[in-house]
Amino acid sequence: MTNCIQGFKDYFCRPKNTNVRLKLPFVCFAWQIAMIILFGVFVRYNNESDAHWVQNMAQNNITSAIENDFYYRYPSFQDVHVMIFVGFGFLMTFLKRYSFGGVGFNFLIAAFGIQWALLMQGWFHSLDPSTGKIYIGIENLINADFCVAGCLIAYGAVLGKVSPVQLMVMTLFGVTLYAVEEYIILNLLHVSLDAGGSMIIHVFGGYYGLAISWVLYRPNLHQSKHLQGSVYHSDTFAMIGTLFLWMFWPSFNSATTYHGDGQHRAAINTYLCLTSCVLTTVAISSLSQKTGKLDMVHIQNSTLAGGVAMGTAAVFMVSPYGALIVGFCCGILSTMGYLYISPFLEKTLKIHDTCGIHNLHAMPGVIGGIVGAITAATASESVYGMQGLINTFDFTGNFKDRTVFAQGGYQAAGMCVAMVFGIGGGAIVGAILRFPIWGDPADENCNDDDVYWEVPQDEEDQLERNVGIKGLFYDWHLSPSRLKFQNAGPV
Amino acid sequence: MTNCIQGFKDYFCRPKNTNVRLKLPFVCFAWQIAMIILFGVFVRYNNESDAHWVQNMAQNNITSAIENDFYYRYPSFQDVHVMIFVGFGFLMTFLKRYSFGGVGFNFLIAAFGIQWALLMQGWFHSLDPSTGKIYIGIENLINADFCVAGCLIAYGAVLGKVSPVQLMVMTLFGVTLYAVEEYIILNLLHVSLDAGGSMIIHVFGGYYGLAISWVLYRPNLHQSKHLQGSVYHSDTFAMIGTLFLWMFWPSFNSATTYHGDGQHRAAINTYLCLTSCVLTTVAISSLSQKTGKLDMVHIQNSTLAGGVAMGTAAVFMVSPYGALIVGFCCGILSTMGYLYISPFLEKTLKIHDTCGIHNLHAMPGVIGGIVGAITAATASESVYGMQGLINTFDFTGNFKDRTVFAQGGYQAAGMCVAMVFGIGGGAIVGAILRFPIWGDPADENCNDDDVYWEVPQDEEDQLERNVGIKGLFYDWHLSPSRLKFQNAGPV
Amino acid sequence: MTNCIQGFKDYFCRPKNTNVRLKLPFVCFAWQIAMIILFGVFVRYNNESDAHWVQNMAQNNITSAIENDFYYRYPSFQDVHVMIFVGFGFLMTFLKRYSFGGVGFNFLIAAFGIQWALLMQGWFHSLDPSTGKIYIGIENLINADFCVAGCLIAYGAVLGKVSPVQLMVMTLFGVTLYAVEEYIILNLLHVSLDAGGSMIIHVFGGYYGLAISWVLYRPNLHQSKHLQGSVYHSDTFAMIGTLFLWMFWPSFNSATTYHGDGQHRAAINTYLCLTSCVLTTVAISSLSQKTGKLDMVHIQNSTLAGGVAMGTAAVFMVSPYGALIVGFCCGILSTMGYLYISPFLEKTLKIHDTCGIHNLHAMPGVIGGIVGAITAATASESVYGMQGLINTFDFTGNFKDRTVFAQGGYQAAGMCVAMVFGIGGGAIVGAILRFPIWGDPADENCNDDDVYWEVPQDEEDQLERNVGIKGLFYDWHLSPSRLKFQNAGPV
Repeated sequence: MTNCIQGFKDYFCRPKNTNVRLKLPFVCFAWQIAMIILFGVFVRYNNESDAHWVQNMAQNNITSAIENDFYYRYPSFQDVHVMIFVGFGFLMTFLKRYSFGGVGFNFLIAAFGIQWALLMQGWFHSLDPSTGKIYIGIENLINADFCVAGCLIAYGAVLGKVSPVQLMVMTLFGVTLYAVEEYIILNLLHVSLDAGGSMIIHVFGGYYGLAISWVLYRPNLHQSKHLQGSVYHSDTFAMIGTLFLWMFWPSFNSATTYHGDGQHRAAINTYLCLTSCVLTTVAISSLSQKTGKLDMVHIQNSTLAGGVAMGTAAVFMVSPYGALIVGFCCGILSTMGYLYISPFLEKTLKIHDTCGIHNLHAMPGVIGGIVGAITAATASESVYGMQGLINTFDFTGNFKDRTVFAQGGYQAAGMCVAMVFGIGGGAIVGAILRFPIWGDPADENCNDDDVYWEVPQDEEDQLERNVGIKGLFYDWHLSPSRLKFQNAGPV
Repeated sequence: MTNCIQGFKDYFCRPKNTNVRLKLPFVCFAWQIAMIILFGVFVRYNNESDAHWVQNMAQNNITSAIENDFYYRYPSFQDVHVMIFVGFGFLMTFLKRYSFGGVGFNFLIAAFGIQWALLMQGWFHSLDPSTGKIYIGIENLINADFCVAGCLIAYGAVLGKVSPVQLMVMTLFGVTLYAVEEYIILNLLHVSLDAGGSMIIHVFGGYYGLAISWVLYRPNLHQSKHLQGSVYHSDTFAMIGTLFLWMFWPSFNSATTYHGDGQHRAAINTYLCLTSCVLTTVAISSLSQKTGKLDMVHIQNSTLAGGVAMGTAAVFMVSPYGALIVGFCCGILSTMGYLYISPFLEKTLKIHDTCGIHNLHAMPGVIGGIVGAITAATASESVYGMQGLINTFDFTGNFKDRTVFAQGGYQAAGMCVAMVFGIGGGAIVGAILRFPIWGDPADENCNDDDVYWEVPQDEEDQLERNVGIKGLFYDWHLSPSRLKFQNAGPV
Repeated sequence: MTNCIQGFKDYFCRPKNTNVRLKLPFVCFAWQIAMIILFGVFVRYNNESDAHWVQNMAQNNITSAIENDFYYRYPSFQDVHVMIFVGFGFLMTFLKRYSFGGVGFNFLIAAFGIQWALLMQGWFHSLDPSTGKIYIGIENLINADFCVAGCLIAYGAVLGKVSPVQLMVMTLFGVTLYAVEEYIILNLLHVSLDAGGSMIIHVFGGYYGLAISWVLYRPNLHQSKHLQGSVYHSDTFAMIGTLFLWMFWPSFNSATTYHGDGQHRAAINTYLCLTSCVLTTVAISSLSQKTGKLDMVHIQNSTLAGGVAMGTAAVFMVSPYGALIVGFCCGILSTMGYLYISPFLEKTLKIHDTCGIHNLHAMPGVIGGIVGAITAATASESVYGMQGLINTFDFTGNFKDRTVFAQGGYQAAGMCVAMVFGIGGGAIVGAILRFPIWGDPADENCNDDDVYWEVPQDEEDQLERNVGIKGLFYDWHLSPSRLKFQNAGPV
């Protein structure tokens, strides 16, 4: 690496060793065992998932099992679960030879992150001080999925350039930072509503990833340039991810909002916002090309920006047309981001953002935060009704005297907290990830599944092999990703 | 085009210009802005999605938030949403070089159509005359998805042969026609039950698409014949679409039926009907080939015909075996359609139907309408119970004295209305689409994503490039879709 | 076949005829017609899906339509449905040229099996002796899907080596055996809890498939060795199956557990168990390779073992950390199975297990049964509460005096029954399938879709054709799966 500080040069610039045979299993085992111990000490079923629930029903005036929170939230939970694993996973299969890494490492870090998130969020939000236990139910599972989403967003920035061990470290710290940030925003600032996490998830996750990518900048990444694009089928695979994210985003934004009209309205707002986002994305994408052709990168990503931006205000009375306007702006801004801001980030700020998370998550998240602040500040009893206002903003307990205008200010403050945690945390974690002990790939091996995966021999490889066997008058090598003639010409 | 009327020849037969750089963005922006304005004027949250709901609960004797219609319908809604975007989208990825167009344009027109459908259906069904506002909730979202399904069916007939601008126009008119037709069928004829839209969605959408395809007939389509088939992986992608449609069809047919046994029975009937449809599809597909091989086209499409045909009668007491019989017949007829009717339509009637929507939607839709009419006419109080009969057929208000026999007649009349709207509307819209201003592709560029999309360079392209660089003794061109030797032979 | 008994040699060793043009349609039609007749005689809507429900509500003290069992189970049902068709289907697309067979035959046999399962399970569990009718509702549909899962598991062992007719026969017998086995385990032994079917589904299905594969052993399977692996995109397709199975397994294990905390707890336990399983799978997979590379086979399969093993005990109070421990062990054991047990089974026991169902279903199912037995035997009133204990173990009627310790014993007995039925039934069905009348492929045609499917001409084929046309100085054949030079060298 050319930008090594001289003193550390020998240490940091050793040739890369991508053998993770000891590191990866060690990390997996160590952390999984730690999880088991911590779960054993701390985690129990909550009231509604415990076998005693049935005898508590009568005491709590619950007349029917359908009142169990499970039935309010489980369908949304499963949709969110699909977004985390298939949505994020397949969205990252677009690279021509990094589909295994995209979907596979996403799977690994999400499965780990979920467990750690249950603990971290549990300590901050579900700990019963009298027993010292965390009591979990369906809402905790949703929140753990949300928390992991922040780390998967960050993965998008460094896709193809890090090792699975680095990703595990990144997720460990990411979840930790997330839980602290969430506690500050939700409990201390009482930003009661960031149901879909525009700020907590997307702003934090986006800047966290960008800061890490900035620290890990590779000036010679062009050495693996032949692997940086997509192929026809990998782009089609990525559309699976896009569509499942797009379709289930209404569930994402409504999964944890309050029962009844809260969930109902959040779903409607998100649905509308996303439809309008598709149209402006297509418009700008087409405008940007000489002959009006559409770019798959924009369709795969910018169409989702509306869901991100609706995250904070989903449950607010933004009105159907308000939701359409938010989507309208996000489609434009996000697509412009891919056209102008990403190249700028890379050239000027030296931030290489593989999936363009700045345009899909960070920027729309900021918009979402602003929309939330404005909508909160302008909320009125005539629009919400007395009880609706209390439900929506949770003006209870210590916060029952807060005005909507003050609430708007706190919403804005919450966004700053998310940004600070993202950038600051990312910079520190990035520095940790630069230590040459994590098995990250050399510049010329980036974006190549061959480094961390047993990759099957494809047709083209077979062509190579067969041609070789037949003793033809020239040798060639048609490996699927690299293609060179070694000895061309007639014998 | 050879069938141009002489007088218009110069105008209609100009060389094709597929540059949509101004048209497409203009249409997207203009329509999205129109949507925002119209939503601003007309659309509001309905009672159950408004923040006032919580204080209205007590007045309406609702004791629990779980009574919100959201919890009855949201899981089905999400399934329908998946069918619209992943189901229809991936079903249309089967062409070897039109997967982007299949899934991408499906995405675009569905997102636009949903908004327009909310307005059009809202004016007819959810407008409160006292306030002049449309009040929307979860059921409106489902109905908007249904409405768009009609247009996506029509897209199947013209897949690969039209520009995105034409598709937008087609969707604008399609949704409009659909809403009027639906109003006539549901409100004027009081065809109270077409829950899965055999007639309203599938018959209308099918004939609408076929009529458009007939008007847009391309006699020289064989010029892009090399792109008309599928490849191995594109067929596998299409199976994603098939399966999500097949699995979620019970949700489609039960999404808007009445609470309780209505949704329950509709799901069971559709589930059973589809299983039996798979077996007869396989049987006929195997019979049709000399060595009994199965044809992916049949498996991908005809297995779904049962869901279409169960659309009208899903909520009726057709009995489990009745549902199996419907599926049995549909599998046979639909597969026969692919074998005999599609070629006939193309050769004799000059209708080119890319996806075979006649066999998958139009014909099974007609069967569904007939099944619905018969089942309605033979309904009896002993089978349904007094209240069940009223619930199922909605014999209330002006229609409380209608007999089941008369209802059967009205069901049949409803099907005719759907067919007339489809054929008539499609012919007119087709004529509009023939104006040479919409950027449609030339015959030799049909079924080719290269026209409207930035298509990534695949391995084969790279082969081409590398071979070129190495200065071999012959030049070849292995572009993924076209493959020509330009200068073969030893130097 | 070399191991033919001499006397039967002429009969059993005739050259293979894979033409299924008459057999397959005959079987499909005959069985579908039989289904229709049997459904006509036996199957009716149950109380909650019948139109009379609405008038029965008042009599049964049901105050709201949301109390219909449909709303408790439908979301889970749809998730299970996705697992059966997309999950199992796509998991079996990993072979390079058997994706159509994997997803397509899975579709066929599942659609048939569901109908037969409704009947078989109905006769044993839902038959009203007074009317002689089977009354079905949403829970029956879920159980039918479960039953079919057993047969799809068995398909995994013989994937690529059998004809669709054999699969239909296998499914007919499989469902029959399953229903008897289930009756013995659930009703006679009163193993009240095997909600996710560790024993009933996975142990039975696993050993059923292995026994069939053992009887059908092909010593010369290496003749189709070039088709036994995966290619890059087929592995990505298989990940779709893996992820949908993984994500929806909480629904699988909670779909039929008792309302309220039962479903809630089953979902949480399964969710946790699966997350921990991913980490240990990755760890062992990485450890097993010289350079720590991950193997897609492990990631696609062993990550799911936790869901299998949680099947029996999902609804028990195993505690969150207990679930993590089960997943921890299963990931290790299942991956080890792929590394050591599968080769052993093939070499020593002559069992070829295409998908490794021994490691994914049979072995984790046994673990699940053991976990269930231990958890049942150690259950106490302090953990469950009085009512919780009765709910969970269904200690009512004849079984109300059974102790938890005895219950543990019966759980273990249940597992033995499942295993006996699997091995015994599989051996007999395997013998039936060896008759040379079912159209199975020759050894050299295994794993090849060309035998039973119209396979589209791919790019590579086109290359072949074009090169041929151009009269080059050498002939080659680049068919997608086989690649040979026939006449190489300069002219």
